[in-house]
Amino acid sequence: MTPRFKHVAIIGVGLIGGSLGMVLKRLAMAETVVGIGRRIENLEAAQRLGAIDRFVRDAAEGVRDADLVVLATPVDTYERQLSLWAGQLSRGCVVTDVGSVKGPLVERTESLLPPQVHFVGAHPIAGKEKVGVAAGSPDLFRGTRCIITPTARTSQEALGTVRSLWEQAGSTVLTMDPFVHDEVLGAVSHLPHAAAFSLMTALGELEDRVKPEQDLLAYGGGGLRDTTRIAASSPEMWRDICLWNRDNLVRMIEVYERHLAEFRALVNAGDAAGLEKLMARAKQLRERVH
Amino acid sequence: MTPRFKHVAIIGVGLIGGSLGMVLKRLAMAETVVGIGRRIENLEAAQRLGAIDRFVRDAAEGVRDADLVVLATPVDTYERQLSLWAGQLSRGCVVTDVGSVKGPLVERTESLLPPQVHFVGAHPIAGKEKVGVAAGSPDLFRGTRCIITPTARTSQEALGTVRSLWEQAGSTVLTMDPFVHDEVLGAVSHLPHAAAFSLMTALGELEDRVKPEQDLLAYGGGGLRDTTRIAASSPEMWRDICLWNRDNLVRMIEVYERHLAEFRALVNAGDAAGLEKLMARAKQLRERVH
Repeated sequence: MTPRFKHVAIIGVGLIGGSLGMVLKRLAMAETVVGIGRRIENLEAAQRLGAIDRFVRDAAEGVRDADLVVLATPVDTYERQLSLWAGQLSRGCVVTDVGSVKGPLVERTESLLPPQVHFVGAHPIAGKEKVGVAAGSPDLFRGTRCIITPTARTSQEALGTVRSLWEQAGSTVLTMDPFVHDEVLGAVSHLPHAAAFSLMTALGELEDRVKPEQDLLAYGGGGLRDTTRIAASSPEMWRDICLWNRDNLVRMIEVYERHLAEFRALVNAGDAAGLEKLMARAKQLRERVH
Repeated sequence: MTPRFKHVAIIGVGLIGGSLGMVLKRLAMAETVVGIGRRIENLEAAQRLGAIDRFVRDAAEGVRDADLVVLATPVDTYERQLSLWAGQLSRGCVVTDVGSVKGPLVERTESLLPPQVHFVGAHPIAGKEKVGVAAGSPDLFRGTRCIITPTARTSQEALGTVRSLWEQAGSTVLTMDPFVHDEVLGAVSHLPHAAAFSLMTALGELEDRVKPEQDLLAYGGGGLRDTTRIAASSPEMWRDICLWNRDNLVRMIEVYERHLAEFRALVNAGDAAGLEKLMARAKQLRERVH
């Protein structure tokens, strides 16, 4: 069932917010999609690209009469955002988000919304290292997963609405406890980002030591390219994700450090059998990543 | 200038050896290309795929009268290989390899060859996580780099021959001291492999702790996929590469561990500015990886 909205407000019309606007427009799921953001040029681009019908700078005005509000700004701005417009929301309005962290953020967001509106946290796993509405597409979510994170307070009707929205966008929708979400994504997404960012800065240090005639980084093959691709992700966005998932991420980096030290110890000891066993286990696990 | 060979012997007809055979055959650079290997099915496949004209199981027979011998077996087998057939090589024969490590391996290989043959170490940076001649292609090397590693003992003529061979294969050829090669590749290739193998085994441990309803690894997006791709590489091959480049790799993993610990400390301290700065530096470095 395709949900129908009278008035949708998208706060933050970047890659994800903009692409969701394109989905809403293409499937005619909303009478009006209004974009709210800081930068006029970006909002104009979003309008030109068919992500929104119109835009306003004043969020309090933009969300008034909305039956769906999509919060698609960096996760660290939610609290400030809600202070600007939560009081303007109509009774029964569904508020959802697209943030990459959930646990404490969902708890905090629920506590800042008035009781007559319904919050449903959502996390479309569809980022890329590109940002901005210009990189957006109504097909961005096709074939991806979207995790929605209901709590004891979540209205079943609002949950159904948000589920349908993402299904219409082409995602496979899964529900998960917000705190479990942060453990799962901490492992499969935040930890790999920590690994890639740190590998890149380590290579920067090694470049200063090893001085070939050309750039050290120019010698990398496909392995270097792939392993470090996500180190090009937005520093502002990932700073916030890491800090909102701090406790899980710190513990997980510790686990990774232990495995790396074990790898190093096997190399240092010249333990061929141990090293091959470790690598074979890694290969076997990797075969389950799709 | 396209080099012409009467008789080329390829020892180890896998992805790299097989693809080089396809190049030699396609460009009619050799009167005969003979493949030498252990597994009959693989040699038959190589012949069917046009990588070799014929094959023999006995390397000593295969290299006799060769003017070019390509050693394309795992690096740890060189010593055993040379003991089997080095004594059969004709005067003036050029022996080259395709191994991913060079420094001590080149030194050792040179010391095991008779004085009347010419060794030139080569490392085509064109691996992929796939193995076997079936994954090979005469275009595998097109647009890639090949590092050749002359020493004080290297004949200029043999160096020119090996350089032309790889240029004809479509590679950009660079020369480098064998020990510098191992520092450079240690940083841009071996360290990323260590990072990917260790990340994968760490995720295996985390999977046992976090128990979502589905496979933990199924929740990964493109970030996980890319970051861990090279963890599917051959354990046998990478075990040997890591051990042949042991001292560099151990030192480099230590540098990486330090950067990872710094990342963790910033997250743990909630140091938003420090974390953003680290990520911005990583992003800037990543922009130089092509």
